[in-house]
Amino acid sequence: MRAAVMRDRKLVVAEVPVPEPGRGEVLVRTLACGICGSDLHALKHADKFVETARRAGSPMVMDLARDVVMGHEFCAEIVDHGAGTTRTLKAGTRVCSRPVLMRDTGPQTIGYSNDHPGGYGEYMRLSETLLLPVPDGLSTEQAALTEPLAVGLHAVQKARLAPDDAPLVIGCGPVGLAVIAALRLLDVRPIVAADFSARRRELAVALGADVVVDPAKATPWQSWRETATVWRDPARAPKLPPWLPGPPARPAVVFECVGVPGVLDQIMAVAPRDTRIVVVGVCMEADTIHPMLGIVKELYLQFVLGYTQDEFAATLGHIAGGRIETAPLITGHVGVDGVARAFEELASPDRHAKILVGF
Amino acid sequence: MRAAVMRDRKLVVAEVPVPEPGRGEVLVRTLACGICGSDLHALKHADKFVETARRAGSPMVMDLARDVVMGHEFCAEIVDHGAGTTRTLKAGTRVCSRPVLMRDTGPQTIGYSNDHPGGYGEYMRLSETLLLPVPDGLSTEQAALTEPLAVGLHAVQKARLAPDDAPLVIGCGPVGLAVIAALRLLDVRPIVAADFSARRRELAVALGADVVVDPAKATPWQSWRETATVWRDPARAPKLPPWLPGPPARPAVVFECVGVPGVLDQIMAVAPRDTRIVVVGVCMEADTIHPMLGIVKELYLQFVLGYTQDEFAATLGHIAGGRIETAPLITGHVGVDGVARAFEELASPDRHAKILVGF
Repeated sequence: MRAAVMRDRKLVVAEVPVPEPGRGEVLVRTLACGICGSDLHALKHADKFVETARRAGSPMVMDLARDVVMGHEFCAEIVDHGAGTTRTLKAGTRVCSRPVLMRDTGPQTIGYSNDHPGGYGEYMRLSETLLLPVPDGLSTEQAALTEPLAVGLHAVQKARLAPDDAPLVIGCGPVGLAVIAALRLLDVRPIVAADFSARRRELAVALGADVVVDPAKATPWQSWRETATVWRDPARAPKLPPWLPGPPARPAVVFECVGVPGVLDQIMAVAPRDTRIVVVGVCMEADTIHPMLGIVKELYLQFVLGYTQDEFAATLGHIAGGRIETAPLITGHVGVDGVARAFEELASPDRHAKILVGF
Repeated sequence: MRAAVMRDRKLVVAEVPVPEPGRGEVLVRTLACGICGSDLHALKHADKFVETARRAGSPMVMDLARDVVMGHEFCAEIVDHGAGTTRTLKAGTRVCSRPVLMRDTGPQTIGYSNDHPGGYGEYMRLSETLLLPVPDGLSTEQAALTEPLAVGLHAVQKARLAPDDAPLVIGCGPVGLAVIAALRLLDVRPIVAADFSARRRELAVALGADVVVDPAKATPWQSWRETATVWRDPARAPKLPPWLPGPPARPAVVFECVGVPGVLDQIMAVAPRDTRIVVVGVCMEADTIHPMLGIVKELYLQFVLGYTQDEFAATLGHIAGGRIETAPLITGHVGVDGVARAFEELASPDRHAKILVGF
C-alpha cells in the first residue's frame, strides 16, 4: 500500500506491506486522517521522543531504524474481518477508533509504532471492540476530528472544574481549540484564550472563546481578571461575610496548550495563588521551571494525555449532534504525496489549524 | 539586642535595635528558635532567593544591603503589649505564633524581612491575634517545633488523601520527618520513607515510618509496592469485577521533601501512572523537568507551602497531647554565638535534624 513513511528521520512516500488483521481485529481502509502537532514533534525530535517514551515506560517506543507510518486522527471504512470477530459492523461501515490495538500482551499504539501503521497509510488494522460507527449524515472529515477534540474534552474533565472556576486557555493551536470547544460544550464560561497569531484567535472565537487576547499587546491575566469578574454568576459566587472588601477573585484554571519549553515557568510566574494549571500541550523537550514559584503560590499542576473510551465516544456523539463547531477547524486537504509539505506548512501557526490527509 | 544577623550575605553576631511593637502587637523575648533549611538556602543563595520571591510576588523580598534577622520556628515569652492590644495573654506567658505580622497594609513576614526580626535575635514583635499560649507542662523546646511540624500537617491535608492512597516520603530531613509525623498522626499507613542517610532513616522510624529504604541499596518504589500491597486493608480496597487479574496497585502519593534540583524529574520518571506528587521540599534554584514524563503518566503535582492558622494551632495541640513524637527531632542546642557554626553543621545530613538556638 502507499503511505507517508517516517524513514531515516524523514517523511517519504513509499510502498509498505498492507497490515494483516490479527485475532479480534479488522482491516480498514483509511478515508481521512488529521495531521497532529505531536507527529511534527516526533519527526523533528525523533530520538528524544523515543528516549523519553522509554524513560516514561510508555508504549510509544519505536525503532527509528525501521519504518513508521504515523497518523492517529482517522476515519476509516471496514474492509475485512480477522479471526474471532463478531462482525457486528459490516464491511463498508465507516468507523472511528482510538489509535490503540488491544492485544493479549497489552495495548499497542497505532501510529507511533513499527508494527501497526497509522492513518498516513492506505490501510490499518483496528481492534473490533474499540470501533465506533460514524453516524449517518456526519461527514468523514468531521468524524476524523473526533480524536483531537476528545483530547480537549478529557483535559476539561480531568480539571474537575468547580462552579466558580474561570478558565484561561494559553495557546490556540489544535489542542487549545479542542479545549475551548469542550469548555463551551460544558458551559464553563467566560472562556478567555490567548495566542500571538491573529488567525488562531479568530479560530478560537469560532470554536467558542468569549474573549481573545494577543499577549504581545495585553496580558492574558488582566483580561482574565476583568472578564471573570464581569461574568460572575451571583448564584455561583461563594457566600462571604459582608465586611470583606469586595468579592474575592474567581479560582483560576489555566489550560497550557502550547507545549514549548519556558511556557510553564512563565505561567507559574504570573498565575495567582492556588491556580490550577492543566498541562495539555505536549512539550517533548527538557523544560526549566522554578519550583519556588509553585511553592510560594501553592500552584497545582495536572498533566493530561489522551482520553478514555467513553470520552472518545461522547466526542463523536457531540460532533454528530452539532454541539461542537467543527467546520472552522479544517483548513487544508492533501493526498499522501502532500503530507511532507503539509508538515512544513503546519510549522507556521498563522495558516492552519487541521490539515486532513485523504486517500 | 544581640542577634545572629545576615549582613553582606554572611551570618554575624551583632547588636541590633530592639523592635517596637506596633498597634495590636506585642514585644516578646525569644526563648528558643529552630534553624530551618530554608534559612540555610536563603543565606547561601540570597540573591536568587530575593529574585524568585520578587518574581513570584511573595512578601519575602529583602534588601540584602540591609540587615536581616532570620528565624521563624520559635517559642517566646510576652514582655510588653503595644497600643490597641486586648492583653488577654499577660506578660510572662509563653507563646507560639505563625511568623507573620498582620498589618493594615497586608501580612508581613517575620524572619525574612529587613524590618521584622525573627528568632535568631533576643526580641521580636508579634501580632496579638496570632498568639497561641503554650500549654502548661509542654517544654519550650517542644513548642518551638510547632512551626516545622505544621508544615508536615499542611502538606498531608493538601494532599486530600483517599482511603486507599499509599504514601511514599522522599527525603527524611526535617520536612520529610514532619510529613511522616503527620501521616502517622492521621493514621495514613503504611508509611514508606527513603533517605541516603542512615541517621535520618533512624529518625524516620522514630517519627513513625513503617518501612525505610536506602535508595543506594534498593529502589523506594519496589519497597513501596511490596509494602502497600501487604498492608492493604480489604475494607478500603476498591471493589472489582472478579475476572480482573489480581488487585490493582494502590494509588501512590509521593511527598517530595528533598528540594534539590533533579529530584522532581527523577520522581516523575519512576512514578506509576496517576501518581500525585506533593512538592514540600523547597527548591530555590531553577530545576529541569521532562513534561513528557508527566504527560504520558498523567501525573499531578501539588506545590505546598506553610500552613493555615488552624493547622498551626492543631499542631501545637498534637505536640502538647503527646500525639507527635518530638524528642528525637532535637539533635543540638546553640547560643546566638553558635548559629553560624550550626548552619555549617546542618549542611551534613548525617548529624542533625533540628538545632535549637537558645537565649
